[in-house]
Amino acid sequence: MQFLSDNAARVHPQVWEALRAADDPDKPYDGDALSQRLDDVFAGLFGRECAAIWAGTGTAANCLALATMVEPHGGVICHRESHIEMDECGAPGFYLHGAKLLLADGAGAKLSAESIGAVLAGITRDVHQVHAHAISITQASEYGLAYAPAELDAIGALAREHGLGLHMDGARFANAAAFLACTPAEAAGTVDALSFGFTKNGAMDADAIVFFDPAKADLARWRRKRAGHLHSKGRFLAAQILALLEGDLWLELARHANAAAAEIAAGAGERLIHPAQSNELFVAMDAQERASLREQGFAFYDWDEASVRLVASWDTRMEDAAALGKAIASL
Amino acid sequence: MQFLSDNAARVHPQVWEALRAADDPDKPYDGDALSQRLDDVFAGLFGRECAAIWAGTGTAANCLALATMVEPHGGVICHRESHIEMDECGAPGFYLHGAKLLLADGAGAKLSAESIGAVLAGITRDVHQVHAHAISITQASEYGLAYAPAELDAIGALAREHGLGLHMDGARFANAAAFLACTPAEAAGTVDALSFGFTKNGAMDADAIVFFDPAKADLARWRRKRAGHLHSKGRFLAAQILALLEGDLWLELARHANAAAAEIAAGAGERLIHPAQSNELFVAMDAQERASLREQGFAFYDWDEASVRLVASWDTRMEDAAALGKAIASL
Amino acid sequence: MQFLSDNAARVHPQVWEALRAADDPDKPYDGDALSQRLDDVFAGLFGRECAAIWAGTGTAANCLALATMVEPHGGVICHRESHIEMDECGAPGFYLHGAKLLLADGAGAKLSAESIGAVLAGITRDVHQVHAHAISITQASEYGLAYAPAELDAIGALAREHGLGLHMDGARFANAAAFLACTPAEAAGTVDALSFGFTKNGAMDADAIVFFDPAKADLARWRRKRAGHLHSKGRFLAAQILALLEGDLWLELARHANAAAAEIAAGAGERLIHPAQSNELFVAMDAQERASLREQGFAFYDWDEASVRLVASWDTRMEDAAALGKAIASL
Amino acid sequence: MQFLSDNAARVHPQVWEALRAADDPDKPYDGDALSQRLDDVFAGLFGRECAAIWAGTGTAANCLALATMVEPHGGVICHRESHIEMDECGAPGFYLHGAKLLLADGAGAKLSAESIGAVLAGITRDVHQVHAHAISITQASEYGLAYAPAELDAIGALAREHGLGLHMDGARFANAAAFLACTPAEAAGTVDALSFGFTKNGAMDADAIVFFDPAKADLARWRRKRAGHLHSKGRFLAAQILALLEGDLWLELARHANAAAAEIAAGAGERLIHPAQSNELFVAMDAQERASLREQGFAFYDWDEASVRLVASWDTRMEDAAALGKAIASL
Repeated sequence: MQFLSDNAARVHPQVWEALRAADDPDKPYDGDALSQRLDDVFAGLFGRECAAIWAGTGTAANCLALATMVEPHGGVICHRESHIEMDECGAPGFYLHGAKLLLADGAGAKLSAESIGAVLAGITRDVHQVHAHAISITQASEYGLAYAPAELDAIGALAREHGLGLHMDGARFANAAAFLACTPAEAAGTVDALSFGFTKNGAMDADAIVFFDPAKADLARWRRKRAGHLHSKGRFLAAQILALLEGDLWLELARHANAAAAEIAAGAGERLIHPAQSNELFVAMDAQERASLREQGFAFYDWDEASVRLVASWDTRMEDAAALGKAIASL
Repeated sequence: MQFLSDNAARVHPQVWEALRAADDPDKPYDGDALSQRLDDVFAGLFGRECAAIWAGTGTAANCLALATMVEPHGGVICHRESHIEMDECGAPGFYLHGAKLLLADGAGAKLSAESIGAVLAGITRDVHQVHAHAISITQASEYGLAYAPAELDAIGALAREHGLGLHMDGARFANAAAFLACTPAEAAGTVDALSFGFTKNGAMDADAIVFFDPAKADLARWRRKRAGHLHSKGRFLAAQILALLEGDLWLELARHANAAAAEIAAGAGERLIHPAQSNELFVAMDAQERASLREQGFAFYDWDEASVRLVASWDTRMEDAAALGKAIASL
Repeated sequence: MQFLSDNAARVHPQVWEALRAADDPDKPYDGDALSQRLDDVFAGLFGRECAAIWAGTGTAANCLALATMVEPHGGVICHRESHIEMDECGAPGFYLHGAKLLLADGAGAKLSAESIGAVLAGITRDVHQVHAHAISITQASEYGLAYAPAELDAIGALAREHGLGLHMDGARFANAAAFLACTPAEAAGTVDALSFGFTKNGAMDADAIVFFDPAKADLARWRRKRAGHLHSKGRFLAAQILALLEGDLWLELARHANAAAAEIAAGAGERLIHPAQSNELFVAMDAQERASLREQGFAFYDWDEASVRLVASWDTRMEDAAALGKAIASL
Repeated sequence: MQFLSDNAARVHPQVWEALRAADDPDKPYDGDALSQRLDDVFAGLFGRECAAIWAGTGTAANCLALATMVEPHGGVICHRESHIEMDECGAPGFYLHGAKLLLADGAGAKLSAESIGAVLAGITRDVHQVHAHAISITQASEYGLAYAPAELDAIGALAREHGLGLHMDGARFANAAAFLACTPAEAAGTVDALSFGFTKNGAMDADAIVFFDPAKADLARWRRKRAGHLHSKGRFLAAQILALLEGDLWLELARHANAAAAEIAAGAGERLIHPAQSNELFVAMDAQERASLREQGFAFYDWDEASVRLVASWDTRMEDAAALGKAIASL
């Protein structure tokens, strides 16, 4: 019973079907019929004009999105525990040609208009300091918390006021949208670009970058090719994305993962470090307790000395989640 | 009947099987059992110690390999018609942080010790000119020509003499090895790193970078992560590569593609611009002749005003190739 | 009697005076009164709005200018013998983050609308090839040839038609302007940014970058700081530039250097490889002839096996130039 | 009476003499006799083999030094208030191609083996996090504090233990060495490269980068040219450095600046935020007090709401410093 990572989950059967169905020669790169459908499908989903391109990893999606907003001498305001700061081996430094991540604070790894404003207020000295060109937020956050539409509105307003780009790392956008029970458009707020993750939610290796200014997508296409991310058989990436969007399968899978996490959370009770708002939980637990759970067959990662991380996926069995919840309650 | 590109070919059934078999949770990134087997499998293939990592595209494979050899202030000697110069949208400039491609000449897009030496001889002025740090050759070349072992030896000796890294872009390494009818080790010569292509030869999206100095692979792992090319479900890339190496399927498929090209070449006769040494042919043809072939149902790309490019794949039907050969002969 | 390089020349007495006069505490960086005067002085010189910043070297001036026009995935069309291609150790690759130099041909290292058009015509394949974002021309060219106003107009029209930035490397702009006997504005044509050289023409270490779109200067200020080219005592760079602009000293010095070169050219006659249009001459000469001149006390660099380069400076004595002319005539 | 910055100070008369004396044609770039003397002069000063090159600014010196130690995928441990982090507009990100600054804490902007160790301990996750390649310390620190030899030894030992490069930003190395009253070698500890500042200490625009591994200097020469920092008349930079090293003028000037600061410090007493260990003081002062001092003719910068920064220079008159000390005491 693995609760290690949604990265470790299986590929959904409908994705497999779509992959096999795509195995017919078509135009290479993103000239194929499937890739060409992405703009329309995402425009339908978000109810506004947009252009969408695929990328093989979330890191690539984040960095290609940011590369359309940030000049090499600029910076990106992000949370100091965000994925782009902590887990991408400096990829933003590479893709943005040395632009700087400007670190902000916030409980649960969430930014707020206030914490972003504090970073902006600290940048004072003409050309001697790096100025912000963009803000990047994570929906859901590194600790599994969702930004509510009103929070997104406040950040969006601040970005516009300061002329900053706004990017959303949506590696778990599906889980946030499912939790918020709002429209995808509301869960995305007024971001300029969204890294819309599918790999953690039933795909094999396909994320989308949705640009609400289509001109930015054209720019990202250059950067994608230049970064070696333009797959020659791009139809296989598009196929995965389309399969998961079809009939809102993506939401259904995320709802399941969230529900499984909720089962665990119910058992964790007071041990929960952050409220359960997606498929990721952080649970206080000492070494002996961890050992006990592992002996019972539960696999998960330590987070730090005082807590563990538990991640449910689209393919987590509810009975396993319930069992883990009970086991924690019984510790 | 498409002869557009081997990029447009299908995924081989054994690759599909391997992909499905890999759909079981394992460690993320390249910690899974399949990815961990690559070093040994390639060491067996080449009969010498090596370390191998996967990459999702050939451009990424080339650039990650070169990044282990070339400092930002250095240069790479390559053919002026090579893929890294002509078709990667400046990806080497991105991955090598502005290092320069130093262009050499040679018939059929092949370099020789002489043409490389001519570039080296022209670099004279201390820190004012970019110095070469590496050489990159393409096996088979952009025009489908294979480097014979003796040619590789001469280039390898020159590289060692000048202390230069040696990289081989092997997007069609399989086709070259099949044509040369030598061992893989002989077809690779004494290169330091080989981009070993599978995507054009039955895979969905997986190439390998084989480093004959394992320390360089460790370096490339950092660069791969930093470039967003470390797939979280890397087992799916490893599975493709292993499936094609199993029982030398890669060679069998390349031999088929070469044989299909040979059928066409037989019909093309004097029209062939370069000898047929792989699965790619360049055939002299005027506009009216092209139109005639297309009316007969053959799909292919124009190369320039005087010639077309015809590419056979692992899934080209021999009867289609024969038909195309005949159609050309009848023009 | 040295004809090695105008880089080797002395600092003009009026520059020394200006440097000493500037040795009074003022605001650091470019906040001082002298630096603040540059915009107006150059606007007066060119008769149009502009913004000007100083840089300590010509390489920095060229690269900072280009960085305002070229995105990392773009390219710069330049002559294959231009300074940015041949003599800056890949500095454009560094400053432009891997953007590519797209090489064009032309007699005397001069581009033309035709040769630029030929490069543009060769770029055809969507995101697979680097597209041009700017053109860079050199006034006077590497071979000392000046672009006439009509030539500049044709290139400027082409740049506008294709939406390309236009940069002029004016390391020897003074010599070109002096030769053309036109206004500075005519000698600059419709470029967007001009690297206006002073170091080869009486300064110690100060060149200007003149932006005819002041917004670009603001951008260049960030890049300059980021490249470590924002001197803390910038008043000393501004002082040099102002001293040379004062009373058109820059033109007077260039006229002298050109006149000295003309003396030599008169003696060189048929040996001249390019017409004498500035202070640089390329003269056909065999090894024995070179040795003879050197025995007579003339210092100069070999250019290639068949020719030498002779450079006159603001401080070349006319009698030395005449002596060299005679010595060549007597060979 | 200006206490704004040592950047605002005058050029020392012996430097002017040396500049004038250098105004005789010599080999361009750093081939001149003066530049060629730097290695020996610094080797004498530090009593060990070294190679030294000049740079026109401190930012360039820091970044060129670090570029010899840090690969693009690596990081530099530095203080979160260090100049490279706060005041160079992201120049390290540019020169190091996106490498990351890894921020450490420490009172008075000084690092310690402990605070560096804490950063190292926090880097745990394989290729997902940026690993440190080097440490950069500032002598004297941003708050004017000197590292004692024993502190440098501890940091040097840690660097060796972890295989990290060690860089010293010595923009005010002279002031630290003067305060410590030890040998230059002791004040530099076991760093691999030292940015040895002269511009704040009597020069016009010349800092040195001293490499204790001469091979690194060769590498830095490429990077310097590529960054546009290879001045064509480099003799003028070398001349400034040699003039200040001659007869230990650099130490004499620093001792004077420190003594002037000590005069002020004596008056500031309890208001001093950090002990006076160089020529920079940070003094607690409210708005009314600042206004009072400014009315009395003292010029200085605010540091934050609670304090001001006062900087003495080689050309600060002792009587002015004493007057400022008295004025503060009388507040």
